This record gives sequence, C-alpha cells and structure tokens, in this order.
Amino acid sequence: MENKEISQAVIGRLPRYFRFLGELKDEGVERISSQELSDIMNVTASQIRQDFNNFGGFGQQGYGYNVEYLYEEIGRILGLDKTHNLIIIGAGNLGQALANYTNFERRGFLFKGIFDCDPTLYGKKIRSMEVKPMEEMEDFVRANEIDMAVLTIPKTGAVEVAGRLARTGIRGIWNFAHVDLNVPERIQVENVHLSDSLMKLAYNINRFENMDLSGFERGSYV
Amino acid sequence: MENKEISQAVIGRLPRYFRFLGELKDEGVERISSQELSDIMNVTASQIRQDFNNFGGFGQQGYGYNVEYLYEEIGRILGLDKTHNLIIIGAGNLGQALANYTNFERRGFLFKGIFDCDPTLYGKKIRSMEVKPMEEMEDFVRANEIDMAVLTIPKTGAVEVAGRLARTGIRGIWNFAHVDLNVPERIQVENVHLSDSLMKLAYNINRFENMDLSGFERGSYV
Repeated sequence: MENKEISQAVIGRLPRYFRFLGELKDEGVERISSQELSDIMNVTASQIRQDFNNFGGFGQQGYGYNVEYLYEEIGRILGLDKTHNLIIIGAGNLGQALANYTNFERRGFLFKGIFDCDPTLYGKKIRSMEVKPMEEMEDFVRANEIDMAVLTIPKTGAVEVAGRLARTGIRGIWNFAHVDLNVPERIQVENVHLSDSLMKLAYNINRFENMDLSGFERGSYV
Repeated sequence: MENKEISQAVIGRLPRYFRFLGELKDEGVERISSQELSDIMNVTASQIRQDFNNFGGFGQQGYGYNVEYLYEEIGRILGLDKTHNLIIIGAGNLGQALANYTNFERRGFLFKGIFDCDPTLYGKKIRSMEVKPMEEMEDFVRANEIDMAVLTIPKTGAVEVAGRLARTGIRGIWNFAHVDLNVPERIQVENVHLSDSLMKLAYNINRFENMDLSGFERGSYV
C-alpha cells in the first residue's frame, strides 16, 4: 500500500492526523467526514482527501471515515505497529528529558541505552538505564538490535558520532545537534533544529508587528 | 523589504541559510555563488535564487553573493537584530535544557524567568533564574516586557496556560506540548512536536526497509 513517491510534506502531516484521530477515538467518535476533520484540524478538506489518496483513500464511504480504522491504518503506515529500539547519545538535560517521555514508549519507541563522554555521569541512573561510556556504543548497538540513535550532543561531537553510528547497523538518527549530518543513504535522519524553530517564531512575531495592527495596540493590555 | 505574502516554507528555510552563512563567514569566505551554496546545503541553486528573490535577491552581482551582507540581511529579516525576552513554563528536564542553551542568548533570545506549578521546585536555581510559581506568571510577563513564552508542560496544562498568556501581551509561544493551541491571531505559535518528528523518522526507516535494498542486506555489517 505504501507508495515510494509520497512527499515528505505528506509524511510530515501523518503524525498530526494520527494524533487527532487518537483523540477522537478516545472520545468515542466512530465516524468523521473530511469536512469535520478539516474543521478541528484547521486544514482544508481537500488537503485531507488529497493526503489520504496517497494511501488509497482509506475507504471513505457514505458518511466519512471510520475513525478507528483510519487511526490504525495511519499508525501502521508510520510503522507504529512495530517496536523500535533506541539509544540516546548525550545524557544532558535534553537527553534526560527525552528518556523520561513515557509517550514514546507507548508508541513502541523503547529506550535501551544512554551514552555520554563525561566520566562523572557513568553509572548515573536515568529511568531504568545507566549512563554508559561512548566507547561501548558500537557493541551495544549490535548486541541490542538498536534501530535508532538520538543525538543530543553539541554539533562538533555529533559529526564524529554519526560517522561511528554509520558503521554500525543503525537505521535512523534523530538529530538534535545543530548541524546537518552526512551519513549513507540507508540511514534516515530526522532533524530537530531548535534554534531554527525559535528563529522562525521570531520572524513571525516581527512580521506581525510590522503589519497593520488595526485596533490592536501593543501595550494596551497593561 | 519584507513581503507579507512570503510562504512559511520559505521562512522555514531562512534559519538554515543563516546557519550555513554564519559558518562560511567564520571560515573567512567572502563571496559565494548560488551554485556553491547549493552544493554545501544540498538544495538546488534555483531554489536558493527563488527563496532569495522573495527578499529582493540580496544583490547578487558578478560572482555570487557577499557572505557577510547576506548573513546580516537574513539575520535582520529573522529579527535577530532585536532582542527578545522569554519565559519558560515548565522547569522539568526540557525546560532546563532550553534554559541552558547559550546559543539562544547569542542570537538575542534572553531567558528572563522560569515557572512551574510544582512547589518543590520553587526557588530552585536554573542558570541565573529561580523557579517561580505559576501564579506570578502574568505579572512577570507585564513587568519584564516578555515577548515569548516557551511551553514545556504536558498538553493538559498547556491549553490553560496558553489561554492565560493570551490575556497578557505575549507575542509568541514556542510550544513543546503535544497539542495544537488555539490563541488569538496576534500571537504567533511555533510548535515543536517531538513525537511527530519521531514518528516521521519511523516512517522513513520502515519505508526504506521495504524498498529494493539492492546489495545492502540488513545485518550484513555485523
């Protein structure tokens, strides 16, 4: 059913559909039309239909989609019917924050190990994991069938570590380092560039400030 | 010079240009052609020219762009010539991680306060800030000319806090809560939905797995 030509823009929207459908399911909603989904998700109904048509349309018939079916199909497309084994590289605040997100586990993302190059952290317990030295990373990846590595280290270290990971069997890197990684094509990289996101917010704030504020005056709320 | 019609896709690419140009500048590169920039950034030269034309083209003449000029112009467009005052809502690991990113400060994003609803955290020092109770948030925002709030709290709390923020003069919300916020149009929201990003990575891994691996066999690296 998957189509190799599906754009990353469409893929990028699937998790959001999945999230909204999960909430609808939890609320006991059984069927939903593309128009209703459009209203709550704030995207056009035609966008929704177009996105879904990439995957065969999910059998909309009569009145809309079957919520549970749609939720499960999108989950399956996203690979959430499988489990993934992850390691975290970098046991700082961000690494610890991610390790403690129980939501990831519920979706089949299992944190198996956490590594750092700071000896004072070795053995420190983060959830059920003990921080291990970086030297043990490669063996650990191989021995524990690790699929994905999460990089929460500064950009200088990230480039080197990505190279080392590329020589293991890792399939994906979730990269929080502020650098674009060059890895072989078989390794998927998903970047979370926090500074980029913050700069985009700054742009949008300043753009709005420069627009016609018709009636809204900054400071008038005080 | 800013144009109100510029798409969010273009805006979303500006921070990446800014980052690469900053690195070129640091390396002492003075001029660069769109083709050279294309090679290092892994986007097409025509995409670069198209993006830049949204802002008047940045005066490419003769051999390429002036790196420093381009870097500064894009920084100015992103609003990085101004400073922004931020508060963090949620003093957990993620909130602390963000508070400790010195990179943000270098770009003019100044963390002024951090808030939590957990009394055991009140007074805890995070960098130069002491964790304050949520009740003090509104007064603090007004007294300290806070532009942006960073939400690093669970989604249930985030909706309520966004509503409270909307009644202050806040201009932007950097939202890490796994929920879409409904706030007045004058407030810009930039979402960092970590689960969505991780799911997209899972999709791409599984899609690759289902493709013709021609010569690359999973496991063969062991």
